[in-house]
Amino acid sequence: MTKSLSAELWPDVQPDAARRLMLAGVESFAQRGYHATTTRDIATKAGMSPAALYVHFPSKAALLFAISRSGHQQALDLVRTAAESADAPVDAMREIVKRFVAWHARRHTIARVVQYEIGALPDEEYRVVAELRRDIERIVQDLVLAGQHSGDFTVSDARIAARAVLSLGVDVARWYTERSRTSPDELGARYGELALRMLGADPTRSSS
Amino acid sequence: MTKSLSAELWPDVQPDAARRLMLAGVESFAQRGYHATTTRDIATKAGMSPAALYVHFPSKAALLFAISRSGHQQALDLVRTAAESADAPVDAMREIVKRFVAWHARRHTIARVVQYEIGALPDEEYRVVAELRRDIERIVQDLVLAGQHSGDFTVSDARIAARAVLSLGVDVARWYTERSRTSPDELGARYGELALRMLGADPTRSSS
Repeated sequence: MTKSLSAELWPDVQPDAARRLMLAGVESFAQRGYHATTTRDIATKAGMSPAALYVHFPSKAALLFAISRSGHQQALDLVRTAAESADAPVDAMREIVKRFVAWHARRHTIARVVQYEIGALPDEEYRVVAELRRDIERIVQDLVLAGQHSGDFTVSDARIAARAVLSLGVDVARWYTERSRTSPDELGARYGELALRMLGADPTRSSS
Repeated sequence: MTKSLSAELWPDVQPDAARRLMLAGVESFAQRGYHATTTRDIATKAGMSPAALYVHFPSKAALLFAISRSGHQQALDLVRTAAESADAPVDAMREIVKRFVAWHARRHTIARVVQYEIGALPDEEYRVVAELRRDIERIVQDLVLAGQHSGDFTVSDARIAARAVLSLGVDVARWYTERSRTSPDELGARYGELALRMLGADPTRSSS
């Protein structure tokens, strides 16, 4: 079970032991926080010795970085693909919010670690992740600006509006659980409507 | 400085030593997480002995509970007062979002501890805090419903919409820093507009 989940989460990571350590890291960090977790805790959870962990990750920080970079990269890929899925700003924005929200609901444990433990990254690693975050914000902000130019969106400050759109998605990871009544995809669809209205667009009308 | 800040944050808490411990707790938990912080860390930060901490708080969990309950109570008071400040749903909702957002920006360090360490509370203490959270959600949800009835708001699901409104505010605590370009009050005003539009209301028109 753990094996198939970790393969689903990180299809690009090899070997399987590295993926299992990433999953154990996510669960440990989410439960007790990065600083309260030892490499021994993580190795034990993954069914390995602490020495075996170091074969794959030179440090606890390196493991957090792998988790954080991969999570941010997945979010960026998803936002970029959604932005390119439609020409009309209204349709592209709806897709971004739908997928971004659904991802934060479905992957809420990973997303919490990715979002809340970012301050624990060493400086150099932090800069790499911060660049991915800026890329995500830039795509959303450019789309808000494009929608302003096309007359689909009316907002007084594109930067603040773009951040608010992303906030809606990120915060889902904080409260979403497996017991939540709304499915990730359904929540994404509802939030897509809310975000479009927030930007001054009519979500019941497609502009394509 | 620390003394005056802690008195401003918790005017109802006595004596000053207890307030200083709460402030030291907030700073330590925000920095390293609840589980990685010892009562010795907190006492040292507050300039006291570990024994002196136990005079005011029987445990680390009791200190977290004091911080968490007080933070939630302040947020609830602020939301309730804002809701009662206007009869028209549009005006009341604008006030709620303005104040709730400004509070999460101004008190972002406390808010992070309050929001992200809630899982570390013991069961009984968790229930007390969860009740305060439900009260906050109920006020916002009732106002969304009132606005639907009056024809000011048009949303497909009041519960999801109310949660999204609160998410906008809560997530401000995650990214807001003293270096943020927008002041807490200005951010509150902008988010007030965004939230009203999200609910299908025209923020440029007052309904009072």
